[in-house]
Amino acid sequence: MIQRLAIIGVGLIGGSFAQALRQAGQVGEIVGCGRSRANLERAVALGVIDRFHQEPAEAVAGADLIFLSVPLGAMRAIFQGIRGAISEHAVLTDGGSVKGSVVADARAVFGAVPPRFVPGHPIAGTEHSGVEAAFATLYQHRRVILTPLPETDPQALEQVKALWEACGAQVSLMSVEHHDEILAATSHLPHMLAFGLVDALARMRENDEIFRYAAGGFRDFTRIASSNPILWRDICMANRQALSTLLESFSLEMSALAQHIRNGDAEHLLEIFSRAKAARDRYVDAASSD
Amino acid sequence: MIQRLAIIGVGLIGGSFAQALRQAGQVGEIVGCGRSRANLERAVALGVIDRFHQEPAEAVAGADLIFLSVPLGAMRAIFQGIRGAISEHAVLTDGGSVKGSVVADARAVFGAVPPRFVPGHPIAGTEHSGVEAAFATLYQHRRVILTPLPETDPQALEQVKALWEACGAQVSLMSVEHHDEILAATSHLPHMLAFGLVDALARMRENDEIFRYAAGGFRDFTRIASSNPILWRDICMANRQALSTLLESFSLEMSALAQHIRNGDAEHLLEIFSRAKAARDRYVDAASSD
Repeated sequence: MIQRLAIIGVGLIGGSFAQALRQAGQVGEIVGCGRSRANLERAVALGVIDRFHQEPAEAVAGADLIFLSVPLGAMRAIFQGIRGAISEHAVLTDGGSVKGSVVADARAVFGAVPPRFVPGHPIAGTEHSGVEAAFATLYQHRRVILTPLPETDPQALEQVKALWEACGAQVSLMSVEHHDEILAATSHLPHMLAFGLVDALARMRENDEIFRYAAGGFRDFTRIASSNPILWRDICMANRQALSTLLESFSLEMSALAQHIRNGDAEHLLEIFSRAKAARDRYVDAASSD
Repeated sequence: MIQRLAIIGVGLIGGSFAQALRQAGQVGEIVGCGRSRANLERAVALGVIDRFHQEPAEAVAGADLIFLSVPLGAMRAIFQGIRGAISEHAVLTDGGSVKGSVVADARAVFGAVPPRFVPGHPIAGTEHSGVEAAFATLYQHRRVILTPLPETDPQALEQVKALWEACGAQVSLMSVEHHDEILAATSHLPHMLAFGLVDALARMRENDEIFRYAAGGFRDFTRIASSNPILWRDICMANRQALSTLLESFSLEMSALAQHIRNGDAEHLLEIFSRAKAARDRYVDAASSD
């Protein structure tokens, strides 16, 4: 049981974590922190948090668990803001979509990665943001990846793991580097394609007409292009290396595919499409019924 | 009221057209035709068709309206099969996703495009196929594009338009070439990206793990990669020119985006993502509430 939980960044991710822990009876008081006073007031009105401070140092004072759910580009400033204000026994964790940059930010601010900091990433979300989008069941049957370092306190790790499990999530451990490569493939690359496609179509002359004839498949395919642009700018900056390499190599594959289409290489096309369908039917639909 | 409707290819598209027209009280008898006897027997059992022939010439004999809903690669053989067996007053239409190739096939087989042939394309579907996937409301609030030629009989056009409207669809007219360009952008290109992405991930060494950490966004994004590979091979072959040009140009854009990410060009990334989000929120969500 956490006596006091501090949520820095009370949006979809932080708000849902607060709601899930509250519903699981795992938390006493919840203190929020964020830049938008209106959002924090709304969070209090919705019962997501009990009270708030706009200064991170004040919000974390006396907290047993501190959860950072701010855009990756804001992490370093938050670490600076809370340094010196964290209780000795407090456990610190985060929900950032890239782990290398968060660990580097912690190391830069604290001199070394604090043993009671457990870097984490819930693989969950929607294209919506803000506390209004939060809901207590967001993490149910979802995976959460924790990326402990050699210096991470095993008790802190155990506590964070147990909290996510109390939210209904399934927790895996992996290295920071491996996390960032896997997520570049399954999340960051698809977001680049969706943002890129919608932007390319929007810049075409007949864009009005193009969108008018977009059907259900297009709506699903581009849903992630409605995600928060600032979050995604930060994710790109934080995972530059892995993502740019993957996107460049995918771009070459698409150029080769264009050539196969131009050449009328029917056999080869059928092979690609069949392999893709088999993989998706097998892995993705299987995963959804986990 | 159609006395006898012949559906050549009783799958998702053809089966749903039959069900919708039946429900709208627009049709007497429905005769099916297809290569799989088991699928046709299932279609009779489900009440989608009343009876069937496996020979197209027999299926169209005495029909007032003939609907071709077979993969694009099978269109020409069907035209050859029914030539000489169509009643003089019969109206012929189709549901092919590319119009240029269907018109070229008709011209090649009949010597000229028959005046009572109305090329069409319902912008609707799911990733499933076969008659089991068909349902009467598939076309409700969906758009159907008809691409009449100068030689198309206005009465035949009017009849096909009215039938789609009876299915609940909204009908637009445009040229064959324009249709194929618009669909290359809104449907064929996204399918290439989804098939290509899933195939690329499936070929990676850690593919098991990659798919395990794919979240809801990935599932939506790749849904269209579960589409029928044969249909999509045929669509690529039929719309080679427009699709390969578009895919090549998109590949160059993704390569440029990779470069921006590598260079840490945060402003530029934010601009692209913001423009894409604005376009999607405005056009796609607006379209869905039409």
